[in-house]
Amino acid sequence: MMNKLKTVGKFYYYYPQAVAFIGYANNIMPAAWHTPISAQPPLYGVLISPKRHTHTLLHQKKGFTVNFLDQGFARMSADTGSTSGRDIDKLDTFKIGYELGERILGPILNHAYVSYECESYAVHELGDHCLFVGKIVLIHVQKDLCKENDCVDPRKIKPLLYFGKDRYITIDPNTLTIESRQ
Amino acid sequence: MMNKLKTVGKFYYYYPQAVAFIGYANNIMPAAWHTPISAQPPLYGVLISPKRHTHTLLHQKKGFTVNFLDQGFARMSADTGSTSGRDIDKLDTFKIGYELGERILGPILNHAYVSYECESYAVHELGDHCLFVGKIVLIHVQKDLCKENDCVDPRKIKPLLYFGKDRYITIDPNTLTIESRQ
Repeated sequence: MMNKLKTVGKFYYYYPQAVAFIGYANNIMPAAWHTPISAQPPLYGVLISPKRHTHTLLHQKKGFTVNFLDQGFARMSADTGSTSGRDIDKLDTFKIGYELGERILGPILNHAYVSYECESYAVHELGDHCLFVGKIVLIHVQKDLCKENDCVDPRKIKPLLYFGKDRYITIDPNTLTIESRQ
Repeated sequence: MMNKLKTVGKFYYYYPQAVAFIGYANNIMPAAWHTPISAQPPLYGVLISPKRHTHTLLHQKKGFTVNFLDQGFARMSADTGSTSGRDIDKLDTFKIGYELGERILGPILNHAYVSYECESYAVHELGDHCLFVGKIVLIHVQKDLCKENDCVDPRKIKPLLYFGKDRYITIDPNTLTIESRQ
């Protein structure tokens, strides 16, 4: 039965979204609001609330990293999402291994199956969040876990997906289908 | 083993992303690049290539609809993603039932578990795509398939997720975990 809701509320029905760990310097936060923006140049965008320490860091326009991890890291998402880099060193506190990027001063997480190093490209204030758009300049990828052709192999990687309200979920590889275009 | 890729290529490693059917007038297209933008005001953003007929339609700034469907509609995504509203009436050709929105002149698909009616809020050209930001003014939701509190029930809905390269996949409800914040 279809209901019409004029009170929009939190409109969480669009989930799941992959968890993207956004990093700069020795700090990370998990973000569920993010998307590719452009193929050429390769742009990736993430929405960050001005309340966040990450907002201050990214506003320096020195770039950021985007890290994707598998479903085993849901606890790490909750931990790093509910604490602030203003108060603690999250990477140290939660024993998260990383190296700094080659082009960007941001963490490349040891357990990420893919990490993008992004130069600052554009910043737009939109409602109560800020869209930070980065240009991908370097990709770190666990080659043995990813297929050829820039794709992830669902038999080897179970991406950590956020489902709203502290819920996490992942894909079922048995449901993979291929639908060729006309 | 970690590889560094300086040739960024298509960087499809970020998938899966839910398929959002973007509508205006009697036209829809599936989009994999989209994200919530702001909680208050409630904003939703979608990236559309200027090559697309939908780009022309959304540039009129009369709003758009965003529809989410379950995994059974992968074929519909491939069909409506590989044809153009310039050439055919997709909704008629592919026998897709809909009604027009109440606030926005865009299709509310009969089989959508949730549809957002969005007023035009902002437009930003970014690289080779255009970000259309809409303000959600009305939500249509299959109440019996969604949990209270603005969320989808993963035992009742299997969202259609795009996985890159014509691949579709969905969630495994048995992997749902809850990780409370600190």
